[in-house]
Amino acid sequence: MKIQLLEDLYIEELKDIHDAEKKLVRFLGKLAEAATAPELKEAFRAHTKETKNHLERLQKVFDRLGQSPEGRKCKAMNGLVAEARDFLKEEAELELRDVGLITAAQKVEHYEIASYGCLSAYAKLLGFRQDAELLHQTLLEEKAADEKLNLLAKNINLEAAEGETPERTHTA
Amino acid sequence: MKIQLLEDLYIEELKDIHDAEKKLVRFLGKLAEAATAPELKEAFRAHTKETKNHLERLQKVFDRLGQSPEGRKCKAMNGLVAEARDFLKEEAELELRDVGLITAAQKVEHYEIASYGCLSAYAKLLGFRQDAELLHQTLLEEKAADEKLNLLAKNINLEAAEGETPERTHTA
Repeated sequence: MKIQLLEDLYIEELKDIHDAEKKLVRFLGKLAEAATAPELKEAFRAHTKETKNHLERLQKVFDRLGQSPEGRKCKAMNGLVAEARDFLKEEAELELRDVGLITAAQKVEHYEIASYGCLSAYAKLLGFRQDAELLHQTLLEEKAADEKLNLLAKNINLEAAEGETPERTHTA
Repeated sequence: MKIQLLEDLYIEELKDIHDAEKKLVRFLGKLAEAATAPELKEAFRAHTKETKNHLERLQKVFDRLGQSPEGRKCKAMNGLVAEARDFLKEEAELELRDVGLITAAQKVEHYEIASYGCLSAYAKLLGFRQDAELLHQTLLEEKAADEKLNLLAKNINLEAAEGETPERTHTA
């Protein structure tokens, strides 16, 4: 398509994140299954619910614009998910698997933070006040999800580090 | 490989970001070429230099660990770059192209923020003090690069929005 207006770019980016969120619902389900620590499992499940809500918000924006969310594949999210799938195939100690799952999830959260940050800025500039509010609300929730993973990582990483055998650990 | 220790995960993640940074040097060159606003071109060029420095820091970490950075391809960065390349192929007004380039670059910065955030946490837990300092320094520079793009976006987005034709703009 030809991008002549900021609104064209806005719609393209909305379609991109809509596809990313759809992929993310399935992906978070896999992460919840693969996680060992109950608090991590619960965090992934809770964020799956939030993600479904983000999709509903996006649908509201598309409805208002009179546009369909279909027609674009988010290649970045494909790459992020492919990387995480490769990790899941590796043989890992359970605590280390949790550490790796958190890292994979934080990368995904950051993709969304960047995308919703740009989208809410576009919506504001375009004078789409309601869209800007919805998108900003999702942005805040993505940031909160990332922060929650930071907190969970503190305990889970510590447990993983305590499993280190000194003979294989370098000193700096 | 079998992931038995946090150090194994640390090395895998270091290899991932090393590959990502190598790809990013070439990608930032393309972004600098494609950008129209001189301040944006300059920002991409400055960040190319920083990125080369990040690669040197990573090499120091690999040297200390007695490991090679090779052997892993960052699928997430492949996806991010593929998405940006698709955007560059689209026919866009020059100001809108700049807006899109900023979004693409911010997505990449956020991937790196997530990765270096996790890596510096791992290094700290493993007691690799020097690594943790180097990785944290890069993390701060990635955050600063993202912040600089936020500032540039304010002007560039505004110019793009001013080009909107009212008959195609919805109101909210």
